[in-house]
Amino acid sequence: MVDRALEGQQRAVARLISLVESGSKDLPEVAALLAPHTGRAQVVGLTGSPGVGKSTTTSALVAAFREQGKRVGVLAVDPSSPFSGGALLGDRVRMGDHAIDEGVFIRSMATRGHLGGLAWATPQALRVLDAAGCDVVLVETVGVGQSEVDVVSLADTTVVLLAPGMGDGVQAAKAGILEIADVFVVNKADREGADQTVRDLRYMMSLGERRDAWKPPVCRTVAARGEGVDEVAGAIDEHRAWLESSGEGPRRRRRRAENEIEAIGLEKVRARLGDVRGGAALEALAEKVVAGTLSPYAAADELLDSL
Amino acid sequence: MVDRALEGQQRAVARLISLVESGSKDLPEVAALLAPHTGRAQVVGLTGSPGVGKSTTTSALVAAFREQGKRVGVLAVDPSSPFSGGALLGDRVRMGDHAIDEGVFIRSMATRGHLGGLAWATPQALRVLDAAGCDVVLVETVGVGQSEVDVVSLADTTVVLLAPGMGDGVQAAKAGILEIADVFVVNKADREGADQTVRDLRYMMSLGERRDAWKPPVCRTVAARGEGVDEVAGAIDEHRAWLESSGEGPRRRRRRAENEIEAIGLEKVRARLGDVRGGAALEALAEKVVAGTLSPYAAADELLDSL
Repeated sequence: MVDRALEGQQRAVARLISLVESGSKDLPEVAALLAPHTGRAQVVGLTGSPGVGKSTTTSALVAAFREQGKRVGVLAVDPSSPFSGGALLGDRVRMGDHAIDEGVFIRSMATRGHLGGLAWATPQALRVLDAAGCDVVLVETVGVGQSEVDVVSLADTTVVLLAPGMGDGVQAAKAGILEIADVFVVNKADREGADQTVRDLRYMMSLGERRDAWKPPVCRTVAARGEGVDEVAGAIDEHRAWLESSGEGPRRRRRRAENEIEAIGLEKVRARLGDVRGGAALEALAEKVVAGTLSPYAAADELLDSL
Repeated sequence: MVDRALEGQQRAVARLISLVESGSKDLPEVAALLAPHTGRAQVVGLTGSPGVGKSTTTSALVAAFREQGKRVGVLAVDPSSPFSGGALLGDRVRMGDHAIDEGVFIRSMATRGHLGGLAWATPQALRVLDAAGCDVVLVETVGVGQSEVDVVSLADTTVVLLAPGMGDGVQAAKAGILEIADVFVVNKADREGADQTVRDLRYMMSLGERRDAWKPPVCRTVAARGEGVDEVAGAIDEHRAWLESSGEGPRRRRRRAENEIEAIGLEKVRARLGDVRGGAALEALAEKVVAGTLSPYAAADELLDSL
């Protein structure tokens, strides 16, 4: 199956990602087989509030990259599920244009499940798409600033989408998006207030400090009509070139690998705690905590001692 | 400070919650002092998509419980921050009515930060409010179905808010909210489609199975005008009574304590991994993973061995 995925066969790729999601015991072996074939894809995170047009933009970007002859992967990660069930379905329908294209891999990641599920699963799904020969993988999420689905820690290039009237530049600055965005997209740029949003962003950028020397471009799009999307694809390409020339690319890849190793390590500990859960130790500790005779910190110490 | 918090002094309560958020080293000691005074508050989780009126409903419920003479705590946990920065600010303004009431404790929990931040911090903040004498603590979040901010695992009573036209009953059922809701609120019930939303919910409930014998009431509210809010408060009270008479209450409290102990245990492991991060071990492993000579799983094994 790994061989077929490496050849880029869609069904094998899909089955490997399912394997990742299910937390299969074969994952370490699969990961070892994939490892030598990874490290080529540019991981592009797309993030922004609900309603800014992430899915439409993602779909339009897929088309733009396909025209360049690139293989494209899409991972849709929506942590606000289950309430976004409808939205995800909508994405799939909109993505339907690309569904029969052999150079496009589309996948929604389930985010329900046990604690810490995504922290390790999404990077592993990315590895599968990378090894399958994707030049670009677009990761669509609303998860900026969250601990679990932190698109910044996953991505080589982070695209932050805004739309007119959905929060002004001051709030954006406060929230730290200036620091994380490598490319800004003001979508729905035909709407009233678009100029103001662009001005606010530029003003805030003039005040803020970045950790690196990259100056994030501000693109204007009407993704639903494909307007401005080639410019976004161009900005993403430029950022990739800058990553390699500046040395920031290797730094980000190393940081990503560190996060990945840490997340898998924690997942392993969690699995061991889960085994404890099956036993009586945790239950007995919980009874004492409920009764107020033991603090949860002291209980956690006892739990770890029992490992 | 703990003594003053136990007396219900707002400033001491606020400072203890800040201590929790900052992950202070004094937390185990504080938790031990609080432990004997916890276990009294009913924790009510309020959840629903952005736009259904969670904050307005929360504020109206605070007023309803205050009229009953109850002390009320509010924890606003919004994982979609930073983009919701504006919304949170809005909440505070709307909550302004209650800000000078000594029987109300309001707090927004920051959700940014390191991996797993909330899993342990929110329950500890709840303990502070519990020990400070709150009869009810309302936890407002969009985090249903997420691993980190799983309101169900925190709450005695989970209130799911819907609004007309924001997703039909079929989607609700798919998403599993039928299973988690102890009280349904159809807010903005003066809007078109409210009857349909209520009908859809009732229909889906007639098909679904719950793990317990409680039949979730469906309340209709126009929270912005305070309409129907007393009924919601009444439904929450009834659910509390049912929790105690059915034995489900103690079961949920024990489950909550188990989750809490597990989360703190993982946080401790994470802190140790963080120490490793300061050293060269993780960096060297990450280099090999980037180079493709080591799989992240094998790297995680080496990392854990080094602990």
